[in-house]
Amino acid sequence: MRKVAVVMGSISDWSTMKLATDILDEFEVDYDRHIISAHRMPKVLQKFGEQAQENGYAVLIAGAGGAAHLPGMLAANTISPVIGVPIESHALHGMDSLLSIVQMPSGVPVATTAIGSAGAKNAALLAAEILALTDKKVAEKLIEFRQKQTQEAIESEKQF
Amino acid sequence: MRKVAVVMGSISDWSTMKLATDILDEFEVDYDRHIISAHRMPKVLQKFGEQAQENGYAVLIAGAGGAAHLPGMLAANTISPVIGVPIESHALHGMDSLLSIVQMPSGVPVATTAIGSAGAKNAALLAAEILALTDKKVAEKLIEFRQKQTQEAIESEKQF
Amino acid sequence: MRKVAVVMGSISDWSTMKLATDILDEFEVDYDRHIISAHRMPKVLQKFGEQAQENGYAVLIAGAGGAAHLPGMLAANTISPVIGVPIESHALHGMDSLLSIVQMPSGVPVATTAIGSAGAKNAALLAAEILALTDKKVAEKLIEFRQKQTQEAIESEKQF
Amino acid sequence: MRKVAVVMGSISDWSTMKLATDILDEFEVDYDRHIISAHRMPKVLQKFGEQAQENGYAVLIAGAGGAAHLPGMLAANTISPVIGVPIESHALHGMDSLLSIVQMPSGVPVATTAIGSAGAKNAALLAAEILALTDKKVAEKLIEFRQKQTQEAIESEKQF
Amino acid sequence: MRKVAVVMGSISDWSTMKLATDILDEFEVDYDRHIISAHRMPKVLQKFGEQAQENGYAVLIAGAGGAAHLPGMLAANTISPVIGVPIESHALHGMDSLLSIVQMPSGVPVATTAIGSAGAKNAALLAAEILALTDKKVAEKLIEFRQKQTQEAIESEKQF
Amino acid sequence: MRKVAVVMGSISDWSTMKLATDILDEFEVDYDRHIISAHRMPKVLQKFGEQAQENGYAVLIAGAGGAAHLPGMLAANTISPVIGVPIESHALHGMDSLLSIVQMPSGVPVATTAIGSAGAKNAALLAAEILALTDKKVAEKLIEFRQKQTQEAIESEKQF
Amino acid sequence: MRKVAVVMGSISDWSTMKLATDILDEFEVDYDRHIISAHRMPKVLQKFGEQAQENGYAVLIAGAGGAAHLPGMLAANTISPVIGVPIESHALHGMDSLLSIVQMPSGVPVATTAIGSAGAKNAALLAAEILALTDKKVAEKLIEFRQKQTQEAIESEKQF
Amino acid sequence: MRKVAVVMGSISDWSTMKLATDILDEFEVDYDRHIISAHRMPKVLQKFGEQAQENGYAVLIAGAGGAAHLPGMLAANTISPVIGVPIESHALHGMDSLLSIVQMPSGVPVATTAIGSAGAKNAALLAAEILALTDKKVAEKLIEFRQKQTQEAIESEKQF
Repeated sequence: MRKVAVVMGSISDWSTMKLATDILDEFEVDYDRHIISAHRMPKVLQKFGEQAQENGYAVLIAGAGGAAHLPGMLAANTISPVIGVPIESHALHGMDSLLSIVQMPSGVPVATTAIGSAGAKNAALLAAEILALTDKKVAEKLIEFRQKQTQEAIESEKQF
Repeated sequence: MRKVAVVMGSISDWSTMKLATDILDEFEVDYDRHIISAHRMPKVLQKFGEQAQENGYAVLIAGAGGAAHLPGMLAANTISPVIGVPIESHALHGMDSLLSIVQMPSGVPVATTAIGSAGAKNAALLAAEILALTDKKVAEKLIEFRQKQTQEAIESEKQF
Repeated sequence: MRKVAVVMGSISDWSTMKLATDILDEFEVDYDRHIISAHRMPKVLQKFGEQAQENGYAVLIAGAGGAAHLPGMLAANTISPVIGVPIESHALHGMDSLLSIVQMPSGVPVATTAIGSAGAKNAALLAAEILALTDKKVAEKLIEFRQKQTQEAIESEKQF
Repeated sequence: MRKVAVVMGSISDWSTMKLATDILDEFEVDYDRHIISAHRMPKVLQKFGEQAQENGYAVLIAGAGGAAHLPGMLAANTISPVIGVPIESHALHGMDSLLSIVQMPSGVPVATTAIGSAGAKNAALLAAEILALTDKKVAEKLIEFRQKQTQEAIESEKQF
Repeated sequence: MRKVAVVMGSISDWSTMKLATDILDEFEVDYDRHIISAHRMPKVLQKFGEQAQENGYAVLIAGAGGAAHLPGMLAANTISPVIGVPIESHALHGMDSLLSIVQMPSGVPVATTAIGSAGAKNAALLAAEILALTDKKVAEKLIEFRQKQTQEAIESEKQF
Repeated sequence: MRKVAVVMGSISDWSTMKLATDILDEFEVDYDRHIISAHRMPKVLQKFGEQAQENGYAVLIAGAGGAAHLPGMLAANTISPVIGVPIESHALHGMDSLLSIVQMPSGVPVATTAIGSAGAKNAALLAAEILALTDKKVAEKLIEFRQKQTQEAIESEKQF
Repeated sequence: MRKVAVVMGSISDWSTMKLATDILDEFEVDYDRHIISAHRMPKVLQKFGEQAQENGYAVLIAGAGGAAHLPGMLAANTISPVIGVPIESHALHGMDSLLSIVQMPSGVPVATTAIGSAGAKNAALLAAEILALTDKKVAEKLIEFRQKQTQEAIESEKQF
Repeated sequence: MRKVAVVMGSISDWSTMKLATDILDEFEVDYDRHIISAHRMPKVLQKFGEQAQENGYAVLIAGAGGAAHLPGMLAANTISPVIGVPIESHALHGMDSLLSIVQMPSGVPVATTAIGSAGAKNAALLAAEILALTDKKVAEKLIEFRQKQTQEAIESEKQF
């Protein structure tokens, strides 16, 4: 069970969620991507959650906006960790997405990241961190990623 | 199809949602009440939504707090009107409940009422208004209710 | 009594509210559209609410922004269900519209939908759901609409 | 036309609005007090607004909470200045009341004061300031009130 | 004492506050306009407030943004009614301006209007309403303004 | 590496964070608990993060309130997954804690849960879900936990 | 110029601001405390700001709530650093106080601390830090304070 | 110890923070500027804070956005005054930055200024005010700056 599922509520979330798959590509983490609307495809959602483990999904990343029910409903149907990405919504700029995802009742957790792009990237990094616990290759890549990130920051400081 | 379903996410919502059933009792509207946690009983929720119409539910009233997914997920599974009541949550006082319920994406509506007690009462009145469109008895009771309400307000104004 | 009234506070709300009438057209639901400013035409508003039922309006959809008083004041004058659409306002992005519409006191309900476009579309779908309780044709169209919506979502998932 | 009308949406607002009448008593300004629920007594509200001037109301003070429509709808029906007091609501602590009162569209102004007690007192002082423009006695009392208020503040500073 | 002072904190507020002077022009109300920064010209502000009445200002309109102290500090120095207009600020869209103006402590009232353009226009109308209490010409113009406004709304409804 | 670290910023967070350790006890997950104030013990924090993996911490749970820097600064120093629990703060009820934890910049993720008690419990469940990916015993306990939770919900529904 | 002025808008702020003077006592920093209401004592405020330096105030600490104008208006009248403490207000819990103090326009800075007690204590510590730049005794006490604070945190961690 | 450190979390903050260095240039205050990401360079941050005084930094200005930990973590490692500038973030417009910086727990103060440009400029002015306490040249420049600022405001008022 080493795959990640990257799920989003609508094709319009793809521009944000692609940032997650870019990171997974960089870490050579195997993943599938899906569009599953919680409200338009509730049965698909239900089944997807239930079968997550038998389909080999160690971690699920779910991005959704507004009254964002996708991450929480996936989490209700699986014991694989679910990471929720609040998509930046139009009127309320993602505050609705954030609260709809993070304020889960006790019993069914969703690991929530930041609103928008940073949240999508960090969701992938979090998935990598989870896989890295038992995958040396990913762990090494993470250490490398952090070192490079730090190095670049130090370089930009030097050239500043 | 003349029944109303009053559904809530947890027994702790009952003190609020009871106000809805009190109104339905007053209007002699037939109803069933259920506790269906969206996150603890997702399959029951799914089935309840799907079978709402065959079970005779003309209207569904759903109260939930925090990352409140119950009203929206019921709405995703039925074409009976779903009325969502944002339960007043602890830390954010129901602002999370409100946004999780009202900010539904286009395609699946939830008729949202006010946070807390007023919302629960008004959900029942809204259900009565919907039934009253084809039920003269309920319509008469509604007119009476409004008249009495107005009368009481005028009385309290007079005695003020 | 099978007509819907689509009312808005100002011509500037039309670009949003047109999305509601598009849905009603699609469902072949009979409707009238009106501009009634709560603050500029209070007497018209008053009369419009009072005569809603005798004018055959089963459901009223009212869109307004800022200190949005139109939906609540219509609801105060009729027992037909009133659906409120919070128009996205300039400075506060519709948070003022939302709270002015949804936080109604107990006794006079307004069925509130999401801020902006999604809210306008869902208001029309909610009206259709209400009419569908006693109109088989609308009910069939709703089932079809949901199926098509689900099908399209599944297709976009397949082609993703 | 030298009278003030102190209007509130419900008897529960009286504990706040009494603070306004206490100030008016102190300034010996003539006033009437009324309970007029915008949603339960829309016709009374309409008439009250329309007849405000012929009833001699120079200024109207209106307190309301939640989706607070009373001040705005009074203002829509009179050209006497209307002062709106946002009553502190339960769940949202008066933020809903404030936005429902202050965010009026252009064309119909409401003079809004602070949420709760301070707002009620200041509404009365504002009414006194308006009357004082043509009433020397009230003007003198206002100057005295301010001087006393300043004196007391200076005293409490001295004894501190 | 029949003049209005239109004061703003900075030249950048002029595009908003001009809407107030346009209304005053329309009502032929005499006014002066001033730029008085509360934080850059505190002594001028102090003096301006103190001398408001001897300079003939019946009403003061003050627009300011962010930590908006101008309206409140003017009000602290005069018993003429002060109307505060929350200018739409950059980051927080005027929510900071609104709270800085409206949440005055008891004892010193500021009559607050809506954030931005609507607030500026309504501030002028409110000033006119105050003056109209003892100025028949302004009162007649106000009635006319309201009638025309209503008429235009009704026309736009007719042509809709 | 199978241990969990439960870290909190202050002894006052313990009443909330104890709910996390109760769950870990229930799941027989090995854990250490620590009080590490980000602002009073920055060096300890730094070292704790750096040595998390060599000390065998597979997952870190960090609870903090207000300007909550603990979870993010731990995450900056380790590639073990960090779960952040926003403690309910006094004035702003945890909204400050939530935003300080969840809005992390891209590159360093924190898995954020709900404000307060539910967040603490879910942080522990999330840790268990992560460990369960390679620990059958924990996985079985999680399935059992979910089943029991569902069963209890269904029972409370039955007895309702 | 080594004194600190601790100013507050009202005697009701004293329970919070006392925490600042307790810290100053602990650091043996010389200070005066004053109640100066921005709105009730504008002239005193003006003079106090203007004479701050000649009265030997190196730093001013100003606590105020609601539409909190005291810190900003003091800052407008002196070039001594002004530290603003947002007092926790009733309805809005200090969010109004915070925005009224922190959102100062460019040109006149106010150093803002947290809402309530923590803000009052930190205001005093900030004043000490400023004085410590040229006062070795205060610098030593600050280092000691921090060490003791760290030590206590480490102790409470050890005994945990 | 007369230098100022201007630190920011990322090169993208430079367009805002440059406004601070422009003011420092104008006041001929010596400063260094640095990019130190709290999350990418935690060790550099730690060391920078610890060595701030021996490197001659009297005052530290730190700008950061989102979950802004830089100012608070610097403050945790030095007794030099730290001024925090909340950078305007994308989704939440700097409200997250503001709360992450200003809501520091008691014991470690951060002097917070306004969100964005005004905050950056005022941070530099605040640093100058602190230095001016023992630097006559800076004090004179500050008085001059204020006078010029007032003069310009009065001029713009005159030409208005």
